[in-house]
Formats: sequence, C-alpha cells, structure tokens
Amino acid sequence: MIDVVQLAEDLIACPSVTPARGVVFDCLEARLRPLGFEVHRKISGDAPDGPVENLFAIRKGPEGSRHFAFAGHLDVVPPGEGWTSGPFLPERRGELLYGRGAVDMKGAIAAMIAAAEQVPADAGTLSMILTGDEEGPAKYGTLALMDTMQELGAVPDLCLVGEPTSSARLGDTMKIGRRGSVNIWLEVEGREGHVAYPHLADNPAPRLVAMLAELDALKLDNGTEWFQASNLEITDIAIGNPATNVIPPKASARISIRFNALHTGQELADRVSAIAARHGGTARAVISGEAFITLPGDFSAMIADAVKAETGIEPEASTTGGTSDARFLKNLCPVIEFGLCNATMHKRDEAVAIADLEALARIYARVAEAALAR
Amino acid sequence: MIDVVQLAEDLIACPSVTPARGVVFDCLEARLRPLGFEVHRKISGDAPDGPVENLFAIRKGPEGSRHFAFAGHLDVVPPGEGWTSGPFLPERRGELLYGRGAVDMKGAIAAMIAAAEQVPADAGTLSMILTGDEEGPAKYGTLALMDTMQELGAVPDLCLVGEPTSSARLGDTMKIGRRGSVNIWLEVEGREGHVAYPHLADNPAPRLVAMLAELDALKLDNGTEWFQASNLEITDIAIGNPATNVIPPKASARISIRFNALHTGQELADRVSAIAARHGGTARAVISGEAFITLPGDFSAMIADAVKAETGIEPEASTTGGTSDARFLKNLCPVIEFGLCNATMHKRDEAVAIADLEALARIYARVAEAALAR
Repeated sequence: MIDVVQLAEDLIACPSVTPARGVVFDCLEARLRPLGFEVHRKISGDAPDGPVENLFAIRKGPEGSRHFAFAGHLDVVPPGEGWTSGPFLPERRGELLYGRGAVDMKGAIAAMIAAAEQVPADAGTLSMILTGDEEGPAKYGTLALMDTMQELGAVPDLCLVGEPTSSARLGDTMKIGRRGSVNIWLEVEGREGHVAYPHLADNPAPRLVAMLAELDALKLDNGTEWFQASNLEITDIAIGNPATNVIPPKASARISIRFNALHTGQELADRVSAIAARHGGTARAVISGEAFITLPGDFSAMIADAVKAETGIEPEASTTGGTSDARFLKNLCPVIEFGLCNATMHKRDEAVAIADLEALARIYARVAEAALAR
Repeated sequence: MIDVVQLAEDLIACPSVTPARGVVFDCLEARLRPLGFEVHRKISGDAPDGPVENLFAIRKGPEGSRHFAFAGHLDVVPPGEGWTSGPFLPERRGELLYGRGAVDMKGAIAAMIAAAEQVPADAGTLSMILTGDEEGPAKYGTLALMDTMQELGAVPDLCLVGEPTSSARLGDTMKIGRRGSVNIWLEVEGREGHVAYPHLADNPAPRLVAMLAELDALKLDNGTEWFQASNLEITDIAIGNPATNVIPPKASARISIRFNALHTGQELADRVSAIAARHGGTARAVISGEAFITLPGDFSAMIADAVKAETGIEPEASTTGGTSDARFLKNLCPVIEFGLCNATMHKRDEAVAIADLEALARIYARVAEAALAR
C-alpha cells in the first residue's frame, strides 16, 4: 500500500520550480503505471513561457462507466531564502513535513495517487490531469493537456482540483468557483509643449485623470449569492516626464478587474474601451481567466460528505481568492477545488501536517468512489 | 567710439555656457573701466548650482542724481549640434551676425555698453547688473548681485532688462511683466497588497486621481487687463508598479502653475496643499519666481518713445512668455524688459541683424538719458 507521506517526500525531493520538467514527472509515472494508469506525457510551448511538461494519466473503467478526474500541478514557486531545512530536502519535524510544495501541491498529488490505489479499477474511469505550469503564465499547462484529452476522447464527468483550499483546519473550505481576472492598459495621446504656452500643446494628463476617475467610480455589481462584488483597482499610472516645464505627449495607466460570474472578461474589456474612448484614449485588455462557478449540488455534497466522514466538519463553499487552473477545466465539466491548509503556501518553511496528508488521501478516495458510483 | 558689432563679436568669442565665469567677464571689465565705471566682480555659491561669477558696474553721477540700471546675463545655453559656423566663432554673413548669444543676450549687453558711452557722465548714475547664471538655476546670479548692490547702497530708480523681447521686428514688443511659476510635487501614501484582496490593502491611486481632477478643474482667475489667466498643468504622474496583481503603496504627481500678479507662489502652494490634504495626500512646492508687473506709465512711455524715434513703431506691452531675472529685480525698483528679436534664441545658427544691434544701442542711450533726466 502506498505511503502517502513517503510519496509526498519523494515528489518534494525532485526540485521543480515553475515551469516543471523531467525528473518529477518520471517519479510520478513510476507510481502511476503499477496502479494500471496509461500515462501520456507531453512537452508544449516555446520560450519565453515554455517549454512545459505535462502529464495526463488515465485508468479506464468498464465501457459506459463514469469518468472522474483529479487535477493539479507539479511545479512550485521559487523557494526564496531563510528556510530552516533545505526546501527540496523534505524533513519531518514533529507532526509536520517541511518542503517546497508540501501543501501547494505535491502533498495533494501524493494523496490523489494513494486514493487511486484504494478505488477499485472496475468502479469507473479515473484520470489525473497534472501540469508543470500553474504557478507561471499557465499558457502551456492545463490548456495543452485539455487538447490531449480531447484527442483521446477522454473528457471527465466531474473534476476535483487539489489546490490548498483549507484555511484554519483541513476540511473547512472548498472552492466552488473563482473570480475572473482581466488587466487593461490605458493610454491617452496628446501633444508635447512648454507649460508657458499651453495653447500650443495638448496635455493628455487631464483626460487620463477623468478616465480613471470614471473607471474608479464604476459599480460593477453588488455581488451574488456565491460571489463578492466585482472589483476594479488602478494598479499603475505613468507619464515619465522629468522636465518640470514640459507638457507631456502621452499618459498611460493600468487597471486590474477581478470579476464574478455576472461578467465575462471581454464584456468588461469592451466597457472599459468605451469609457477610454469617451476620454480620447485607448484600452488594451489581457484576460487572465474567466470567472467560474459550480453551483452547490450533488458534486459539492459528495465532497462535503467525504470531508465530514473523515474530519467531522462541514466545508464552507467559497469563491474567494486568486485564480487556478479550474478557470480552464470548467470548460470540460463541473469543477470544485479541495485540498490542504494554505497557511504556509508560497512561504519559507512551507509545511503540511502529516495527519492531514493521510486524511486527505482518504477523503479523495471517498470522493472518487462517490463520483464514479453515480 | 565703441563699435557695438565688434563688441558683440568679442563677447560671443568668449565661450560662456551657463554658469559663466572668467574670460567673458574680463572682456567686459576691460570695456567698462575706460567708460568710468567702478567694477565689482563676485563669485557666489557652491556646487551643484555654483560657483557663479557676476558683475556689478556703476558710474556715479552728481550727488542726488537719479540712478538707472541695465541688467542682463553673460551666460548662454549650450550650443547643441549642426551650426553652419562655430557657435563661439562669431561670423557676419550678409546682414546678420551669427553666434551663440547673438540675441540672448551678448548683443544686448554690447548695446548697453555702447549706449553708456553716449550718456554724459554728469547726467546721473548709470549701472550694469550682469550675471553668469540666468539660463541655469539662477540661484547665485541676480540674487547675489542684489546683495552686493544693497551693501554698496546702490539701488536703482528704474531698471531695464535687455532680454530679447522683440518678435517679428526690433521694437514690436516690450515686457512690462511676467507670470510667476511654481512646481508642486504631490504624493499619496497607501498600503500595498494583492488585487484579489483589496480589503487588506489601501490603494492610493483613486485618491491621487480625485486630487488631480479637483486641481485640474480649478479656475484660478480670468486674467487681468495685462495678464492672461493663470494656468495649471499636470506635468507628471508616477506609480511605478510593474506587477499587474499588486495594489501599489504610493502614487505621486507633479503640477506646474504659471500665475499672474493676482497670486503669489506661496498662496498657490498653500491652496494646493489644502486640496492635497483633503484627498489624504501631501504637496511640496518649489517657487521658481513670483509674477511681476510694472504698470504702463512713465517708464514704459520712455521706452516706447525711444523705440518709436529709432524704428518708427510702437512697442506692444506684453506679459507673456517664461521667466527672466526681472522676477528678482522687481523687488528693487520698477523693471521693464526690452531687447532684440527672439526668433533664433536657444537655437542653432542664433543670429542678430547687424542693423538691429546699432539701433538697439541708440534706443538704450535714449532710454537711459530720459530715465536720468526726470
């Protein structure tokens, strides 16, 4: 039987700062094949955001059976300085296992594999969607694997992403949705000149200021039953004019909108463009991800039941926080995120409670069995 | 008799890019002493804005006589590239004399000296206030010479600054005033944070935007009989945040106000500070110069009469354009600026019409005699 803690240690010991490639995938493949998984590894993308390695593993159930997928990422954020033990030298101290990726999210991937061992092969189709590029631009990670899955005709019915969603204790939170994100670059052109002769120049700054005041005053929505209100932040303004007596030729700014499922990135980009145009400016949007929501229902109930059975607590269904690969996977099937406690993620001395790893493997096994049984 | 064109050439041939020192002052002193002037040379200030050389020359008239002063500067702006002949190798081509400083303002200084020769020594007290730092920060130029003049008890009754005020032809414009100038640096502090968690951060950008919108909407005045309306320009805005997902900790901007004699720099600085404070920000003002106005009257009439006698045209009394050392001298006595055509000032191939140099010397002599005769 797979020792989930030992497996987490093995994965942590393969350094895989984003984008991940190579050894950490070898380690994973070596554990998946004996469990009956077909393993598809694929390297995608070119510099600067690639190449990225990804892995799709599938263990097919009987004809016509349901298909449940676990999803996650093997890449980790850079360790930074000041660790008590080496970030890639996993170390158990007391009740904790330390190492980069312990909670985000090699620990969860170890739990998925331990869970797969517990799920009978004839219960249905089980798969693993594991990327090397979640912590980076995410251009060649999950999106590339989704192509592979389409080619294989392997589209799941339900998908659980193992991001560290728990907060104070394991099981207190699952994410049934996430807000979308769009960054928009604004620019206003004018005509340079001397401040003593403003009639010969055209200062773009007042138009940018009026544009930003209008954007800042926008009330996008009041939130929904499941989402907080969408929010717009001015993240940069730049003119870059060192000369005190010169009216500048150009003024620019950047805003960031985190939006709920009442909007799409494109609709917001169009709306901001229209406001920019009214002030004589232009807007260029880059949509990082759309909002997603898997409304509470059967799937969230399966997860809540499994969590309650193993931890005794009822998880809250949340939609807060940043983005994850669920923003892509929601286009395949209903997606919910559930995983370890996130208190130490992205920090030095990242650590997971050993008992939580073992409990998470049992929770994941219960969820998979329930999802395949339906 | 002094050849004004030859003297202008001699001055141009002494390179004196701002701040000026040394040879150009030696050249000047050698011409002033034979005319009966006492010459006071003084080096003032430390790096980075000094040291600067300045010269005050005075030819005292009979006890109780009036005191008329010419003022100007021997420093020039850097020549830049692309001259037809050397910028410091004066060259007559056709009806023009070429060289850096030909109009701004070594030509005018040559005319002042030629004029002084024509004014009888017993007509009254004549002086020359000549600085080496008008084109630079002007911290150690006219201000330092004004101290020297106070020490000598030599405060003029009227002062003519020889800046190139003429536009299409010699005599068409004198400046009876100039607007003041103040630059103000604005800053708003906030608290940095992640755009996904705005409640944990405090974005300073909206407060800066609201502050700038209020400042841009200010109507300072409607102008006066002699001045255009005061004007405020936003000259820079800076946040300097490269991260699309970060709420910045600080936002700053800079404005420039050109103001007429209805205001003082300090009053405007206080007014902007109060607006900045209402938006949770701060303002730091640097006043470059106060507005000055010498209302049309006897002094402007003397200049107009002299101009009309020599050129046949009536000069317009203007207050437009940038600042000059008149902003300091107005604290001593009434000041008016009158000089050569400014079309080529600060440009390559700066040039003066030879006939204008000769006419200007005669105009200056008429003005000095009229001023001393009263």
